[in-house]
Amino acid sequence: MANSASGDSLIERADRILASFSAATSRLTAAQIAQRAGLPSSTAHRLCAEMAQRGWLDREGNAYVVGTRLWELATRSAPDSSLAVLATPFMQDAQAALGQHIQLGRIEGNEVLILQRLSERGAREISSTVAGRLPLHVSAAGLVLLAWLPDDDRTAYLAALRDTGQAVPQGSVRTLAAVLSSVRATGHAVQTGNLEPDRTGIAVPVRGARATVVAALGAVIDRAAAAVDPAATVQVLRAAAHGIERTLKEHRVA
Amino acid sequence: MANSASGDSLIERADRILASFSAATSRLTAAQIAQRAGLPSSTAHRLCAEMAQRGWLDREGNAYVVGTRLWELATRSAPDSSLAVLATPFMQDAQAALGQHIQLGRIEGNEVLILQRLSERGAREISSTVAGRLPLHVSAAGLVLLAWLPDDDRTAYLAALRDTGQAVPQGSVRTLAAVLSSVRATGHAVQTGNLEPDRTGIAVPVRGARATVVAALGAVIDRAAAAVDPAATVQVLRAAAHGIERTLKEHRVA
Repeated sequence: MANSASGDSLIERADRILASFSAATSRLTAAQIAQRAGLPSSTAHRLCAEMAQRGWLDREGNAYVVGTRLWELATRSAPDSSLAVLATPFMQDAQAALGQHIQLGRIEGNEVLILQRLSERGAREISSTVAGRLPLHVSAAGLVLLAWLPDDDRTAYLAALRDTGQAVPQGSVRTLAAVLSSVRATGHAVQTGNLEPDRTGIAVPVRGARATVVAALGAVIDRAAAAVDPAATVQVLRAAAHGIERTLKEHRVA
Repeated sequence: MANSASGDSLIERADRILASFSAATSRLTAAQIAQRAGLPSSTAHRLCAEMAQRGWLDREGNAYVVGTRLWELATRSAPDSSLAVLATPFMQDAQAALGQHIQLGRIEGNEVLILQRLSERGAREISSTVAGRLPLHVSAAGLVLLAWLPDDDRTAYLAALRDTGQAVPQGSVRTLAAVLSSVRATGHAVQTGNLEPDRTGIAVPVRGARATVVAALGAVIDRAAAAVDPAATVQVLRAAAHGIERTLKEHRVA
């Protein structure tokens, strides 16, 4: 059905068009989309026009942005969106006590997918954005999610990291493994200055049905702006995580 | 390209599949999707499977939910999502003062599209949801958006309402027109008990570039839980709207 000469389906091509957009490049011409999506120019022009007709893309001058209708269709019933909505009031509670940035992420592939982020007015920007991703082993939320992965999956992740010879902020994959044991033992993760200097991230797990960890709740604290009291921060986050867990149970989500 | 016998394109059919899902029906089998989307069962099964392969739908048991990847693609760069993220800290400020529900909506077609909603923990649920819609003339946010429509558009909306003979909460279309004049004169709208008894909605405009009204910021107050002081509520909402306007200007959004 609707396969191009190269054998990829129309859904696949539409997906590549949508994937050309990012938080940093939210407005693209059809020519830029063709290049980023690796599609022939004529295909990109035709398909963008068709997507714009349905509101999956919106025209802005001579360029396209991701469309309102697609946002609406993808948001109004998505489980990720429900989890974010249910968690938000408890994230607000934590933010009232801690200020700065509070975020909720869950594992997706080998990364952290940020489902929700609350930022204090005037807080210095951080790199993570709603629907953005972070690598698992460099953020506090990622360490929490990695620590509670099923053993086989965690072992495979660490083995892949070792094989690529990639630098890890913990110094070595062996040290990272020890850090993950300690995260499981203490019930929280603390990371300092990995993603951004002068920031400390602190995160705790959020559990769903059958006590599985379904998300990580974290605070990102600007050490230039505030003293960090990890113990107090962990307690506030735990209280909020507990509230989220209760709500998930009430709503039978996760 | 990829047109079915009935002439609709694959994008059109995928759109109808996604549109079958709603906040109330977030989990559907392929048979339910076929029925809601008005598609032959074999088409729905095949297309759902293809969409699931790209992560536009996720499988949950024998049913489908809207997929994480689609949510991510639609959220990370959508202008609606950026507007919601930029507005959230100011909505939190308003909520700290007013409690209950604070929401941000903008006009889309002839309806209010809810971009963001913050709800106090334990607040009694309201019918509007993030990415949900409300009719323009029955909500306070809708009245604000309707009041600042270009004159021709507003006249056309009122004429259509008159032609359908639909009951309007204001009693008559003539009264509604007078209410809209008063909303423009006072700079805010108040609606009581239209969408839900015991609730009062109060909303103010949010202006973008060239002073155009780009959104409405509203509070929904449960009169059973709290006394409503409209004047004070309007002042708090105005302060928050002003903050949102300043941020939109700084970020050159809207």
